Amino acid sequence: MYSVGVDYGTNSVRALVVDIASGEEIATAVFDYPSGEAGILLDPADPNVARQNPADYIEGFYKSVAQAVGDAANTKLFAADKVVGIGVDTTGSTPIPVNREGAALALLDPFRDNLAAHAWLWKDHSSHAEAEDITRAASAGGFPYLAKCGGTYSSEWYWSKILHCMRTAPEVAEAAYSWVELADFIPAFVTGNTNPDCLARCICAAGHKAMYHTEWDGLPSAAFLDGLEPGLSRFRYATVAVPSNQSAGELSADVAGRVGLPAGIPVAVGAFDAHMGAVGSGCGEGILVKILGTSSCDCMPAPMTAKLPDIPGLCGIVPESIIPGMYGLEAGQSAVGDIFNWFVKHLAPGGDTDQGAAHERLTADAARLKPGESGLVALDWNNGNRTVLVDPLLTGLIVGQTLHTTSAEIYRALIEATAFGALTIINRFSEYGVDVQQVINCGGIAEKNPLVMQIYADICNRPMRISRSAQTCALGAAIFGSVVAGAYPNVAAAQAKMTGVKDLIYDPIGENVAVYQELYRIYRALHDAFGLESTSRPLSHVMKDLIAIRQRVRKGLIDV
Amino acid sequence: MYSVGVDYGTNSVRALVVDIASGEEIATAVFDYPSGEAGILLDPADPNVARQNPADYIEGFYKSVAQAVGDAANTKLFAADKVVGIGVDTTGSTPIPVNREGAALALLDPFRDNLAAHAWLWKDHSSHAEAEDITRAASAGGFPYLAKCGGTYSSEWYWSKILHCMRTAPEVAEAAYSWVELADFIPAFVTGNTNPDCLARCICAAGHKAMYHTEWDGLPSAAFLDGLEPGLSRFRYATVAVPSNQSAGELSADVAGRVGLPAGIPVAVGAFDAHMGAVGSGCGEGILVKILGTSSCDCMPAPMTAKLPDIPGLCGIVPESIIPGMYGLEAGQSAVGDIFNWFVKHLAPGGDTDQGAAHERLTADAARLKPGESGLVALDWNNGNRTVLVDPLLTGLIVGQTLHTTSAEIYRALIEATAFGALTIINRFSEYGVDVQQVINCGGIAEKNPLVMQIYADICNRPMRISRSAQTCALGAAIFGSVVAGAYPNVAAAQAKMTGVKDLIYDPIGENVAVYQELYRIYRALHDAFGLESTSRPLSHVMKDLIAIRQRVRKGLIDV
Repeated sequence: MYSVGVDYGTNSVRALVVDIASGEEIATAVFDYPSGEAGILLDPADPNVARQNPADYIEGFYKSVAQAVGDAANTKLFAADKVVGIGVDTTGSTPIPVNREGAALALLDPFRDNLAAHAWLWKDHSSHAEAEDITRAASAGGFPYLAKCGGTYSSEWYWSKILHCMRTAPEVAEAAYSWVELADFIPAFVTGNTNPDCLARCICAAGHKAMYHTEWDGLPSAAFLDGLEPGLSRFRYATVAVPSNQSAGELSADVAGRVGLPAGIPVAVGAFDAHMGAVGSGCGEGILVKILGTSSCDCMPAPMTAKLPDIPGLCGIVPESIIPGMYGLEAGQSAVGDIFNWFVKHLAPGGDTDQGAAHERLTADAARLKPGESGLVALDWNNGNRTVLVDPLLTGLIVGQTLHTTSAEIYRALIEATAFGALTIINRFSEYGVDVQQVINCGGIAEKNPLVMQIYADICNRPMRISRSAQTCALGAAIFGSVVAGAYPNVAAAQAKMTGVKDLIYDPIGENVAVYQELYRIYRALHDAFGLESTSRPLSHVMKDLIAIRQRVRKGLIDV
Repeated sequence: MYSVGVDYGTNSVRALVVDIASGEEIATAVFDYPSGEAGILLDPADPNVARQNPADYIEGFYKSVAQAVGDAANTKLFAADKVVGIGVDTTGSTPIPVNREGAALALLDPFRDNLAAHAWLWKDHSSHAEAEDITRAASAGGFPYLAKCGGTYSSEWYWSKILHCMRTAPEVAEAAYSWVELADFIPAFVTGNTNPDCLARCICAAGHKAMYHTEWDGLPSAAFLDGLEPGLSRFRYATVAVPSNQSAGELSADVAGRVGLPAGIPVAVGAFDAHMGAVGSGCGEGILVKILGTSSCDCMPAPMTAKLPDIPGLCGIVPESIIPGMYGLEAGQSAVGDIFNWFVKHLAPGGDTDQGAAHERLTADAARLKPGESGLVALDWNNGNRTVLVDPLLTGLIVGQTLHTTSAEIYRALIEATAFGALTIINRFSEYGVDVQQVINCGGIAEKNPLVMQIYADICNRPMRISRSAQTCALGAAIFGSVVAGAYPNVAAAQAKMTGVKDLIYDPIGENVAVYQELYRIYRALHDAFGLESTSRPLSHVMKDLIAIRQRVRKGLIDV
């Protein structure tokens, strides 16, 4: 029996056909979104805008699934009628305005050329003022809604985007009957569900991005929403948000015909890519999955036997958002690979044929250094700090430079900084009683850079394991497909058969651990001095003051 | 009438013939020291060793002065018998062991191949343990000797070097009758003075490097010196150290014949290059001269009408060391151009044909940035901090990096950091009642980089002037030559005729000043947090802890 996982990334969609008995990946196909720049619709007047064309998502499902199923058919044992389930994961929060029939407004006249009517991609930051409004309103009004997402609402999230649309593109907001997360839009579309009032809303998106929680009445109250903007409460949905072990419906005959599958296959409720990636990597109680890419997403489920305390600084604590029946804990670092890429792009001395070659050369040179040898320590905040400080207005720092400091020493210090950031997250879990017994890494950096993994092992003082699959998000989606098919009683049972780690495990090296424990104390001293706001910390405003000056100068308020 | 200035640098000696009525530079000649690597004798076994061959100094006088005088003769009005005085400046502390007849041991058997018998160049750091011993002995014994040199004795200085020679090359120490600074050796040699007991010892070297001061009995007491090493007191000289408006003697017939000048010309007492350079740049009461090169040397005289307080953190406060009759104040930054060169060497992205081209490109890009626009602030401590913290174990820091920070932004932040360091020195002068009314800059950076000068003007909120002469050290030496000739009653009168500044003055730009005042507050917050040792400052040990870890790892005490 087989399951199909469909993974909607930022620039493309991938379909994966998986043997559910073994987790063997039979066939895969990728479809690049054709619209805009690498699939993203930009606005020359506002660099914060990042939208997508819903038509790309639909065509992407047809093309990628059809090709993967077609390729799978080259495998002796495969047959289309052996596909028992489908799962879908997507980026998010990526809400799409739809009409009463569930159709994306962007696909209809007169909205085809209206950017506000398209999908609002997760990394669209045009709603930063609205995010601040929401944080202020929740805080000032004494509402509990931010307790589960670290205390600060983000411009990347559901309500910020809808609010910004109401204020800047009222014609779209008025025409919208509802806003549907991409993670819910795809399962609804492929199951032929055209009623926005009845389509399955996933707990993953609702809980992490829309302030949905059973401790209050699901979504924030109508009074709260209308207090932000009269009419905003119209976009509250009344349905109960559900986890991905539930079925969103069955593959419609129309869609089935286009992708070469039989109609009627159950389709799991969607979820975000990182969460299904964690499942595909083998997360479980005490097992943290780190998805290492340009940034990091750290996911771990925790048992619901006891009420979990709110953990300060965690992006999200949402029941059932990763594995049904467990709390889903999400943390992350705002930049990991992005910091290494920044260094190579702006500061790596020449002679390399391309940036990949520069990474290889710097990695080789950095690998020859001993921990502590450079005398450098850096903070990994070039893109702010998501966990545990939850502060986008923090910036990078490096200390210890001499006249002999080399580029490889700095490159290694930046790697170490991201590892110290990773350890800070693990420690925060532990401080609140959630013990991290095992770490499984996935993503490009984890697979390609043994130096990074060894440094993470030495600094976190824990073995670093690597997910066996290189397509953990799509694999996680396929796992949920197998569960809604009834092939497994629950996610853990499916994971036991379908996931695994590579044989190569990076074990901590004792001598390195000892040096890094000393360096971590220095990292924490810097972390606290620059990151914790306090009148008794004279440096706690340095980074924000610099940003304030920068913004003022750039806006030309000072005519220098 | 003409004066000849002879300037002994680290790699070469320059002779300059100057019209004393106008300061016009008639002719100049440079002689590169032929021995060792660029004139420096190295020890493959110890990178701290830097010695020079005294024969190079003697040949250098003959060759450079002869050529300059010969070239001057091409000028219509010049004649050798119109040369009325000679001045000499040198690097230092650069002591030379000599025998009872004043001859350098290195020029005699059996010491010709003995590195310890050669000149110990200023930047020889092999005596660091001895420097620590001296600092400890002075401090523990309650001796006042370090009060005028910032509280810490240096491995670059006179007694450290002699002590190291006694401990590591006793055959040289035993053969030495005296140790003579290069600044005293040359005037003695060219005036035929062969008695080390009677040659003029300049106050500049004695006061700044040998702990000589009239507040105590000139040099440190015999008891103190012998407490460091029995017999060290043998190298106390009994003469009173004198300023450079006094004559060291008259040009000997032998030397005069070799250089094409008449015998009997008065030769001024020597001094260090930076101090005579300050004179050649036009320093005076309220006028600070900054010599900007790989590091900076900041010199200013102050009136002796009132007793000057000891200014914490100043390298030296020595009566008459710059201008006779005034206090000589010396401060400095451990690295200026060296920081820019470090950045270009290790961190400038490729595509430049050479480092000069990289400097030009980065300077052009940095010039397009507005103050504060980058959001960066750096500390200029890559080579420690000479003034006002007097701490070689401080290191560099940069804060404010994002994922978009460019190399030009960092380059500009490093320039700004050195300017903030310059302002900190100026402020320290002011805090102790020594007002800096004017700043004159000289050296390669001052002449070649308008961006650096504009940033210095904006950050120091003072006009930045540039010395008219590009050879200020040799010009300063010639000024002292003219004074000992009696052509002028004092140094100030000679400066009035012989020095000047360029027409181009960099005036502070009001809007930039305002932004930089905000940024300086941040610089000072970092400066104090990382630079001032205090238990209430949690970051005050960060840089030293990192160095301690680095040293331990590099020494292999931890076998990683």
